[in-house]
Amino acid sequence: MNNFEYKNPTKIIFGKDTIGKLTNEIPADAKVLMLYGGGSIKKNGVYEQVKTALAKTDLIEFGGIPANPEYAVLMDALKVIKEEKITYLLAVGGGSVIDGTKFLAAAAEYEGAEPWEMLKNKERPTKGMPFGTVLTLPATGSEMNSGLVITREETKEKLAMGGPALFPTFSILDPLVITSIPERQLVNGVTDAFTHVLEQYMTYPAGGLLQDRFAESILQTLIEVGPKVIKDPTDYEAGANFMWSCTMALNGLIQQGVPGDWAIHMMGHELTALFGIDHARTLAVVAPSHYKYNFEAKKEKLAQYAERVWNVTEGSIDDKAYAGIEKTEAFFHQLGIKTKLSEYTDKFEGTAEEIAKRFTDRGWLGLGERQALTPQDAEKIVKMAY
Amino acid sequence: MNNFEYKNPTKIIFGKDTIGKLTNEIPADAKVLMLYGGGSIKKNGVYEQVKTALAKTDLIEFGGIPANPEYAVLMDALKVIKEEKITYLLAVGGGSVIDGTKFLAAAAEYEGAEPWEMLKNKERPTKGMPFGTVLTLPATGSEMNSGLVITREETKEKLAMGGPALFPTFSILDPLVITSIPERQLVNGVTDAFTHVLEQYMTYPAGGLLQDRFAESILQTLIEVGPKVIKDPTDYEAGANFMWSCTMALNGLIQQGVPGDWAIHMMGHELTALFGIDHARTLAVVAPSHYKYNFEAKKEKLAQYAERVWNVTEGSIDDKAYAGIEKTEAFFHQLGIKTKLSEYTDKFEGTAEEIAKRFTDRGWLGLGERQALTPQDAEKIVKMAY
Repeated sequence: MNNFEYKNPTKIIFGKDTIGKLTNEIPADAKVLMLYGGGSIKKNGVYEQVKTALAKTDLIEFGGIPANPEYAVLMDALKVIKEEKITYLLAVGGGSVIDGTKFLAAAAEYEGAEPWEMLKNKERPTKGMPFGTVLTLPATGSEMNSGLVITREETKEKLAMGGPALFPTFSILDPLVITSIPERQLVNGVTDAFTHVLEQYMTYPAGGLLQDRFAESILQTLIEVGPKVIKDPTDYEAGANFMWSCTMALNGLIQQGVPGDWAIHMMGHELTALFGIDHARTLAVVAPSHYKYNFEAKKEKLAQYAERVWNVTEGSIDDKAYAGIEKTEAFFHQLGIKTKLSEYTDKFEGTAEEIAKRFTDRGWLGLGERQALTPQDAEKIVKMAY
Repeated sequence: MNNFEYKNPTKIIFGKDTIGKLTNEIPADAKVLMLYGGGSIKKNGVYEQVKTALAKTDLIEFGGIPANPEYAVLMDALKVIKEEKITYLLAVGGGSVIDGTKFLAAAAEYEGAEPWEMLKNKERPTKGMPFGTVLTLPATGSEMNSGLVITREETKEKLAMGGPALFPTFSILDPLVITSIPERQLVNGVTDAFTHVLEQYMTYPAGGLLQDRFAESILQTLIEVGPKVIKDPTDYEAGANFMWSCTMALNGLIQQGVPGDWAIHMMGHELTALFGIDHARTLAVVAPSHYKYNFEAKKEKLAQYAERVWNVTEGSIDDKAYAGIEKTEAFFHQLGIKTKLSEYTDKFEGTAEEIAKRFTDRGWLGLGERQALTPQDAEKIVKMAY
């Protein structure tokens, strides 16, 4: 096990009918900017619940943050924050709204002229405007971590950053929001959380025995409740476990003391930036090829995963490891996710080369848990994924 | 799953050779009282490491906090805190030293004349003197929670309390401390952590699917590494996983959204108070009888535990549940723990009745996950445990 430092100060308020607790979480003298997405919260009752809870709060709204939060839109929100002398941010939405809000929390305190520089320089902000969240879409774990991903249409880029000042002060997780989430987004949520765990687990045996078992616990729970939630979003027990699993998948706990991969995300982000494919689906596209390409480096963990998560008991290490990849792909198919890039686009020519070039240009010369995956390797993996 | 609120702000610094990081964690202008136990830290090098890290800090020492931290001793420490105008506490020790330090953090800000009243009234302090810990004995989880247990020799009482102000600001967990821990204390540590998980898990199926799996993960890890650590405390991988498992067993995570039992602890505390039996050993004494006595109420969970943790695949629910109890007792025996009270004392007469009377006098009329265990039930369980 590697040395680690771990602190997660976010207060989680979890359970049915908890959105009203907002009243107690936001300081009475705060001037709040409430941020949300395309307006689904106005159809599912969340908007009304938030407004009721904050009836006495000095509050301005900023809607329209798109999936894959767009830098230009966020810069409009930043203007509002400065002009209106906002002191507290409230994200009401899924990972995109929360990531965008986090970026604004950092941008509001940023002293440079162009906040995009924070992303390019992978800065780790130590100060930020306080913010809370009301989660409406379980998936990314952003509600209990300090990371964010921002997209910039102008340059077709999607970049990540994070920092100790970017944990939400609180996050409200009411599983009842799940009842009105479209199936496509539920499928994406299960897939996103599942892949988050894989990225932190599917490396090499690193002596994090408890971390491994926690990761397997989340995977097993998602396998158990994911299909149930998709079939019946009103199944509260399944929904609550789905929601808590998504949070635990990426709140930092399971990554402590063990190596992380994250190359699947790096390649997946490019596919979203280039083709607009849903984030979760890009992960499902890249993961099987990534594991096949890096089979030798990952086969012990793949075999452990096959044994413990999928009850594969027969065969050699190689057999079990390969079965683990097949089970993963079959699970994505069971959810209704296509796992070949050719099923999403026919304009593939030059894509893999472009991604390799971008990685090279950014200096990303060694990705993965051993920093050994070159841009050329990524090019081959993306081609395998077509 | 039940609604819950969860926040754990303690910063964990984990890994080999991390005690030196103390320098950065304690404010430069703090006046520190360093608290420790019987002096083992002066033999194993921890004392020197702490003093070196805090060479430039204004620091006073208070040693001699006994196992089962004694109220009278803590009141002596409180005098020092007040006389010396201490502003920061540093616990260097195991659960007893940390619990004692937590109590002092609350007592330093308590406005009444007799801090014991906080325990009697089960107060939940919202203010306390800041404190950090250097953990020298993995077991109780006190390094990452806000609970404490204090003993009072004068009245032969042992009472628990906790509150949001009583989380350590930081805790340093260096698994290298394990190499010098006596076998008896390692055995106690494994048993203590194992029982902590059981108390939060062995109730009834409550829809906390992920919480169940996390609990099982900790139990499985303790079963895997516990015997290894006892056999060879220099096995770093086993020791690190043991240490992290003890912390995760009682840092609040696995109890969120699910019922807790804790009746084993309530009965065990009395056995420590009355006979001076090591805390962990009282838990191993009470647990098997408790589970047999409450078999019908707990058998679904006992069977799930037997299946998932001990790979018991044959038989009915009742068969599996009973096998789960037997496996648990066998595990304690494997560790070298005696599980019958008669193996610890022959002055048993009247003990069970005395414990029942104490519970009645304190108004503890319904313990356990359904608040259904009466003092008379406790009397019978303690008799079964003899």
